[in-house]
Amino acid sequence: AAPAQATTDKPKYPTVRLSGLLQTDAAWFSQDAANRDLVGDVQDGADFRRTRLSAVGKAWDNVGFCIDMDFGFGGRPSFADVRLDVEDVIGRCDLRVGFFRQPIGMDVMTSAREMTFLERGLPATFLPFRQTGVMLSGAREDELAAWALSAYRFPSDFYGGNVGDNGGYALATRATAVVLSQDDGRGLVHIGGAYSLIDPANDVLQYRSTPEVFIGETGGGVPVGVPNNLPPFVDTGLIATEHTQLFGAELAMVCGSLYAQSEAIYSVVDQTDGPTLFLPGAYVHAGYFLTGETRVYNGKGGVFGRVIPKQSVGKDGGIGAWEIAARCSYIDLSDENITGGRMSNFTAGLNWYLNPRTKFQLNYIHANVWREGESEAGIFATRAQIDF
Amino acid sequence: AAPAQATTDKPKYPTVRLSGLLQTDAAWFSQDAANRDLVGDVQDGADFRRTRLSAVGKAWDNVGFCIDMDFGFGGRPSFADVRLDVEDVIGRCDLRVGFFRQPIGMDVMTSAREMTFLERGLPATFLPFRQTGVMLSGAREDELAAWALSAYRFPSDFYGGNVGDNGGYALATRATAVVLSQDDGRGLVHIGGAYSLIDPANDVLQYRSTPEVFIGETGGGVPVGVPNNLPPFVDTGLIATEHTQLFGAELAMVCGSLYAQSEAIYSVVDQTDGPTLFLPGAYVHAGYFLTGETRVYNGKGGVFGRVIPKQSVGKDGGIGAWEIAARCSYIDLSDENITGGRMSNFTAGLNWYLNPRTKFQLNYIHANVWREGESEAGIFATRAQIDF
Amino acid sequence: AAPAQATTDKPKYPTVRLSGLLQTDAAWFSQDAANRDLVGDVQDGADFRRTRLSAVGKAWDNVGFCIDMDFGFGGRPSFADVRLDVEDVIGRCDLRVGFFRQPIGMDVMTSAREMTFLERGLPATFLPFRQTGVMLSGAREDELAAWALSAYRFPSDFYGGNVGDNGGYALATRATAVVLSQDDGRGLVHIGGAYSLIDPANDVLQYRSTPEVFIGETGGGVPVGVPNNLPPFVDTGLIATEHTQLFGAELAMVCGSLYAQSEAIYSVVDQTDGPTLFLPGAYVHAGYFLTGETRVYNGKGGVFGRVIPKQSVGKDGGIGAWEIAARCSYIDLSDENITGGRMSNFTAGLNWYLNPRTKFQLNYIHANVWREGESEAGIFATRAQIDF
Repeated sequence: AAPAQATTDKPKYPTVRLSGLLQTDAAWFSQDAANRDLVGDVQDGADFRRTRLSAVGKAWDNVGFCIDMDFGFGGRPSFADVRLDVEDVIGRCDLRVGFFRQPIGMDVMTSAREMTFLERGLPATFLPFRQTGVMLSGAREDELAAWALSAYRFPSDFYGGNVGDNGGYALATRATAVVLSQDDGRGLVHIGGAYSLIDPANDVLQYRSTPEVFIGETGGGVPVGVPNNLPPFVDTGLIATEHTQLFGAELAMVCGSLYAQSEAIYSVVDQTDGPTLFLPGAYVHAGYFLTGETRVYNGKGGVFGRVIPKQSVGKDGGIGAWEIAARCSYIDLSDENITGGRMSNFTAGLNWYLNPRTKFQLNYIHANVWREGESEAGIFATRAQIDF
Repeated sequence: AAPAQATTDKPKYPTVRLSGLLQTDAAWFSQDAANRDLVGDVQDGADFRRTRLSAVGKAWDNVGFCIDMDFGFGGRPSFADVRLDVEDVIGRCDLRVGFFRQPIGMDVMTSAREMTFLERGLPATFLPFRQTGVMLSGAREDELAAWALSAYRFPSDFYGGNVGDNGGYALATRATAVVLSQDDGRGLVHIGGAYSLIDPANDVLQYRSTPEVFIGETGGGVPVGVPNNLPPFVDTGLIATEHTQLFGAELAMVCGSLYAQSEAIYSVVDQTDGPTLFLPGAYVHAGYFLTGETRVYNGKGGVFGRVIPKQSVGKDGGIGAWEIAARCSYIDLSDENITGGRMSNFTAGLNWYLNPRTKFQLNYIHANVWREGESEAGIFATRAQIDF
Repeated sequence: AAPAQATTDKPKYPTVRLSGLLQTDAAWFSQDAANRDLVGDVQDGADFRRTRLSAVGKAWDNVGFCIDMDFGFGGRPSFADVRLDVEDVIGRCDLRVGFFRQPIGMDVMTSAREMTFLERGLPATFLPFRQTGVMLSGAREDELAAWALSAYRFPSDFYGGNVGDNGGYALATRATAVVLSQDDGRGLVHIGGAYSLIDPANDVLQYRSTPEVFIGETGGGVPVGVPNNLPPFVDTGLIATEHTQLFGAELAMVCGSLYAQSEAIYSVVDQTDGPTLFLPGAYVHAGYFLTGETRVYNGKGGVFGRVIPKQSVGKDGGIGAWEIAARCSYIDLSDENITGGRMSNFTAGLNWYLNPRTKFQLNYIHANVWREGESEAGIFATRAQIDF
């Protein structure tokens, strides 16, 4: 490869594209008395769930990058993907360095731009999500199978930083395969499995989860004591552990305009001063396009991809794509000496895709909590989303 | 509208443009002894008043977006316009969803890129400015009249978030018309009226204002107790209210190289435990181009637009546009049991527009304050601005 | 210059380019017992040292701008260069207004994208670096000599702001020349000198320095008392002074694939209530390209520029550029009544440039500290960098 400056032509690299994502949410909460006792009186609210600007491009024919900042989330901005990728490092493998989603779980590996519901299912609580590390990944040439192996620091903060002498290293690996593919993707069965071994920095770990909605704002310009965000409904508190293992199993399918996806996640926490904990979570969800679209599968990532309406709502008419969806999910944060509680959520969703880049979403989430007794909450939430 | 992916051509959407605004200010304060007693010894300072980067574009032929972040203001970054727009929703109306300037007031609806003075006039204190909501707007085809109607959450914070069960909803509407237009805009009279009904979250409201200058920085790298920003000169403190109404009236004109603009704003605060407050504010300002330009009017927005010098300062010479301007403004935050004080400002300005995107500004602001007695301050301030 | 709008053509200005820089670092620390007593047990860590997005462009044929935000550094984001430039203001001089690196020092004037080591040498501690101000600069037409003169506010914070009545003004000037240039830059000798007079705001100043590595993160998501960043190893504490002077001298050379660079910096602090302090610092470093490249010199900036590998690592092969480098540096923060300590660092480095925009770096830094006795630390650090 000759240096770009060797000719008088304009250098071909770097290339860069400005990208972004906007999600503006509103949510209304109803709680029974027991739930208000447990977590306080959760306030209605409106919030930008994600407000991202990113630069994506290539520094050379085999080297790519992404710097993606989220101005809507707590770090203001928090880091989303901040990474560099070198292609074809060993055989046909790709090498990734930086802050990115660690390869375990199908739901959490699905882009926030392309989720069926407002939030990911409850079992995502267990997963490392974005951490700073190094990953090798590959796929079969026909993209019917893919795998990834990553070493990462844990836990990283909002900004991809991690400090601590006492551990803080982890591994993750995930493999997925399409076991049936018919009719150009209109009939498809996906399976996947994943594993992660975590030695957390400072030898502590904590799992906690809100219901499947997120309004994380403070109470506006006037500082009078309102709760400053949605509190976790289940919470283990700090758990002393030197090693924790995660196991994940995935099953998904497409059948015409119907698709379904399910995962089970198991966290096995080797407590420093106590018995080993077995903490499970699982969900199943399904979606159906009333307007005849099919959910596209991304074989390299082992996840579902973007919905492209058959007829976008444009200047010449069109009704967009309409989808109905439902999800059941469950998480158990209580075992042995840890009494973090259990929660199940049932979520019903209606999605209107105006065009490939714009959608409006409605979710109703019903949460049942078993922690210091039983309690319930219902949440109605909306989202307007655009990405580019 | 066929999906963009239906052809092998590069998809036409999304389109995106990187935009920005840079304002670097310096200010020097002189105060009489009474004013120093009232608000403390205000320190001289330099500051980036606005440092914005934004992505603006279209997701489809009828759907636009803007994500604009201000790195200079307190939220670091604070949200500026963060919104999506759907065109031609009902008849020829446009629908806007997100965080944007609520339609009340001419001065506050004028772009920060196109202001005559460094800061907006004192009555802007009363207005909601950017809040998270939904707006319908429209204009006559000849753009000689325009209107907007918005429902919004109040108050939103720096990041477009609002939390609170007890109210937090509001409406705003504004209508403007050109009653006289001659000579291709070189003779023009604009009138406008606006109204907003606000039920603030947590049933409290607060009005406060500095003089018409803003240096909001902390005291540099060495932490030795300097005042950390310009304090408000008038301030109602928290007012308990379940409903507040705002009334606005506008009058503006262009006559060749001269233009003038005036507004009156009335806030009627229905106190929870006290009498109704009537709080007024008003300003009038005028500008004159020594170099013969005419201030352009933007009919769809009902505001003045960008100054385009006849001869920009470029490699081939040119002196740019030179403008002199003056403003009188007034605000009264005292009524009944509330003793927030009154303030008047007189501001004189000199603007040098090097080209349509670059200007240097000088302002001298004289503030008279009536609050715990009478006091005075004089401020000399400069700005270098560029936008793209 | 006719206004851009005078024709129906698309206006030529503004132009804008999205640029960025990504540096992801990891560091491992070993300390002797005395060093742990002095500064605490420094934790290993990983961190994004710089994560920058910027807009760079022109508002007119003679007016440029840069808005560069660093999301990796403490201000989150901190301002990097935020400025506007007007060319050919007086003769062939350029005028710069905003927040930018003040002209004193060769190491600190070198772009963070183009440094030989992970961090600048210890004497950078004395230098003002980025401050808000106004600068005039010029160069000989053949770029064999260049100069700059700047007036600035001091100290500016992360966001370019400065507040304070009691001083806060400073001047800096630097001149550089190439005294020998042969063989199209493969043989070159650079000399430079610089001076700055500083009247710091609030009449106080503080110098402190870590070794030549930086991991500035808090301890991850779980809040259990880890040190939240790398502490300074030497530190004067606050020094009361109304005037401080800085003197700098530079010498650099290129000889084929070898280059070397050296600076001495002297800070003369006129203490308000004590004797004048003479605080010196100096470094010398050298680099050698195993793959035959030559370090490019940037005459206008008076610094070294970007390394362009002869054979980038691309889809067609290539091994990139390989460089070895070493540096000795020293700083003395003790004089008279001030006992900030002395430190020397020896740094060895290995750089692999995959292409002009991507590099991997290894540094080993050995620090000797003389402060409350003698102590030592060794640091092994890595970086993956991409810029665009």
